[in-house]
Amino acid sequence: MNLDKFFKAKSVGIIGVSKDPQKIGHVIFKTLVDGGYKGKVFIVNPNAKDILGKTCYPSITNIKEKIEFAVVAVPFRLVLKVIDDCARKKIKDILIVSAGFKEIGNKKLEAQLKEKIEKHKMRMIGPNCLGVLDARTKQDTVFLPRNRMMRPKPGGISFISQSGAVGSAILDYSTKQGQKFAKFISYGNATTTDESDLLEYLGKDKDTNVICLYLEGIKDGKKFLETAKKVAKKKPIIVIKGGVTKAGAKASLSHTGSLAGKAEVYHGAFRQANLIIANSVEEMFNYARIFENCFPPKGDRVQIITDGGGYGIMTADSIQKHGLAMAEMSRRTKSNLVKKLPKNAIVGNPIDVIGDATTERYSIVLNECLLDKNIDILAVILLAQVPRLTPDVVDVITELNDKKKKPIIVIMTGGDFSDLIKRSLEEKGVPCFTFPDNAIKSLAQLVKYHKVKK
Amino acid sequence: MNLDKFFKAKSVGIIGVSKDPQKIGHVIFKTLVDGGYKGKVFIVNPNAKDILGKTCYPSITNIKEKIEFAVVAVPFRLVLKVIDDCARKKIKDILIVSAGFKEIGNKKLEAQLKEKIEKHKMRMIGPNCLGVLDARTKQDTVFLPRNRMMRPKPGGISFISQSGAVGSAILDYSTKQGQKFAKFISYGNATTTDESDLLEYLGKDKDTNVICLYLEGIKDGKKFLETAKKVAKKKPIIVIKGGVTKAGAKASLSHTGSLAGKAEVYHGAFRQANLIIANSVEEMFNYARIFENCFPPKGDRVQIITDGGGYGIMTADSIQKHGLAMAEMSRRTKSNLVKKLPKNAIVGNPIDVIGDATTERYSIVLNECLLDKNIDILAVILLAQVPRLTPDVVDVITELNDKKKKPIIVIMTGGDFSDLIKRSLEEKGVPCFTFPDNAIKSLAQLVKYHKVKK
Repeated sequence: MNLDKFFKAKSVGIIGVSKDPQKIGHVIFKTLVDGGYKGKVFIVNPNAKDILGKTCYPSITNIKEKIEFAVVAVPFRLVLKVIDDCARKKIKDILIVSAGFKEIGNKKLEAQLKEKIEKHKMRMIGPNCLGVLDARTKQDTVFLPRNRMMRPKPGGISFISQSGAVGSAILDYSTKQGQKFAKFISYGNATTTDESDLLEYLGKDKDTNVICLYLEGIKDGKKFLETAKKVAKKKPIIVIKGGVTKAGAKASLSHTGSLAGKAEVYHGAFRQANLIIANSVEEMFNYARIFENCFPPKGDRVQIITDGGGYGIMTADSIQKHGLAMAEMSRRTKSNLVKKLPKNAIVGNPIDVIGDATTERYSIVLNECLLDKNIDILAVILLAQVPRLTPDVVDVITELNDKKKKPIIVIMTGGDFSDLIKRSLEEKGVPCFTFPDNAIKSLAQLVKYHKVKK
Repeated sequence: MNLDKFFKAKSVGIIGVSKDPQKIGHVIFKTLVDGGYKGKVFIVNPNAKDILGKTCYPSITNIKEKIEFAVVAVPFRLVLKVIDDCARKKIKDILIVSAGFKEIGNKKLEAQLKEKIEKHKMRMIGPNCLGVLDARTKQDTVFLPRNRMMRPKPGGISFISQSGAVGSAILDYSTKQGQKFAKFISYGNATTTDESDLLEYLGKDKDTNVICLYLEGIKDGKKFLETAKKVAKKKPIIVIKGGVTKAGAKASLSHTGSLAGKAEVYHGAFRQANLIIANSVEEMFNYARIFENCFPPKGDRVQIITDGGGYGIMTADSIQKHGLAMAEMSRRTKSNLVKKLPKNAIVGNPIDVIGDATTERYSIVLNECLLDKNIDILAVILLAQVPRLTPDVVDVITELNDKKKKPIIVIMTGGDFSDLIKRSLEEKGVPCFTFPDNAIKSLAQLVKYHKVKK
């Protein structure tokens, strides 16, 4: 299913734009125009002449110019009529944000909608969804205003969420954390386009490197697993399955009307397809960060570099806990480091460059470790509270990271000063984590995914 | 062991204050004076007349006025002599930040120090530590400058860390997150004052409501468990034990020279003493937040209130996973809510006030749930991306929280706007969590601790 028009149409028609700035259609219109979308925008409202200076048309059929993509935000009772209008206007790609279908028991209306879409050979996302956005083209049809949900910078993560609220919360949060996105898709009732179609589309999308997926139910299990398996051979897919316990499944039933199955069944099937299972939103976000930034490591041997002994220990604990290996550096590296580092530094795994560490000391250690064939991955702990470490450590790490010899991840816990360094590192493609366990758990997913993929 | 002078002395003498603003003694002096400490400060440096306008004395013994507390920042070779000087000056409470003792193999020097301290009947924290601070009195002797490590506002959490780097990183991070502290203690080599002494002291400290503890090794296991058991009957103790795996233990050995034992042994003993075990820094911080803010719940039955179905499901999943119970509201509550809420809201557990939720709708639900005897705890999900929710939801929640009928926790994921609301809530004592699983896992610790305590 080619969904290109949902993300890079040359013209968008929004049907159901109210004068009331709180109403969905109005928010979509204003957000799209203010956000820098370069295509043409047309709006439909039979009861208004113009809104925010833009001419309103009584129906989409009254517009002479070509419209590639329609957004439907009218009350549910009017949706079927609007679809017929779109058909007459030869629009094939339609987003329906209107709610009021099977999720509130209107199964018949939902069935009629499905029939109509199929009859007209249209592609449809929704209904009962939040909208979709493309961070590059700024084709942004999410009905939450910018002052409530931040919009991401362009990046390689695409995020599909059955739940609109979960999706928007995660997008808002991770944008604030500096994460960059390709596409965001809230798909609601999945009446004709379901999670499998979206996966398949994103599998082929050249802007998407990592796919994140929040699922409550799955419409067609077999289709989903076949698609997921195929796509996972090309790109990592990180999935959260909501409603995995009995209590969650019960809550899920009353939410979208989809029956959430048992955790073991789902997770077992997901693992077979080499999907990456996240147990929380936070995990998904951490995993996405590492997949977005790191190329495949050659093996699982991690060298820890730290300026705080305690964090070195915690990181070593996590490496063992999550099934990675502690690297054992070569004799040559060891003797070089013993020569170059101060006497009270500890040359082992962890390498402890101790509390008076400077940028230069990190540079020495990183350069040596990148040359060592016994080391596959570098986990660099930067506790920036220490007084002698200077912000140019960012340049040292990013320059070496750009050479792509081994994946480098950074672990930093701190306040204002640490955040400054962290932001600079992430801006330049070095994945940073707040705590050792988050970092290593994410790293373990990276190693495992690429191992199975091979 | 009465350690009051480490936190509320009327006068402090700092021995070893260099002119060099990068040196430890200088940083401590400047930080203490700039930070608003109200007591008298004296500085010792035989090679300077004055530093930052303050008279330098050649020795602590040259000072006529009374000094209640000494901070020693001289090179390790001079420490023993300085201790004798302090004894002559009748100072009984001494912090030694100087490094160079058993941690680098100088076991003899460490033994001599111990003997001297005991002979003079002094109380000593250190050596090889970062310092201590009291957020109320501003007696702050941590040797990291304020532009590298943020200082917390006064609150009820006290944090003991064997590792200086871990301690300072956590303090810096959690201060940035808005967490408030009573006391911070980095205790280094634990030569005379160990983790048990510190626990016992904090157990009696009226400013401390929650004790957080980062341990690598334990000096005297029996003493520790006896003390911990006693203190845990009064106050929650949250502990991270670094070096729990083989890899971690190996790293720990080379770090502080303390032998880190096996995870199971430690954790088993900790649980018997009703200590709360955190597996990561983040967990510790989340647990501390809930213990600091929430009074004991009457039971384990949690009612979820949400404006996003997906988050309701995730929260329900977590409740089951972490051994809490889903509350079943009374018939009366149910019928009241059905009457008062819009038709498409879902009245169950979760209560879904749906995407067009207003502050008023949250107010109705919270008030009803607080009256219901079938509910022990409220988990309130606020996805503030939705357009109609207004910031006065903060007033509604904090006013009800102040009545202390049932513990209320809030779950919010988001960007700038959400952060604004979150900060306001936390400022007024409502614990907020970024994700459902963090929140519920922390809640489970609260329930369990108080159950065992009873």
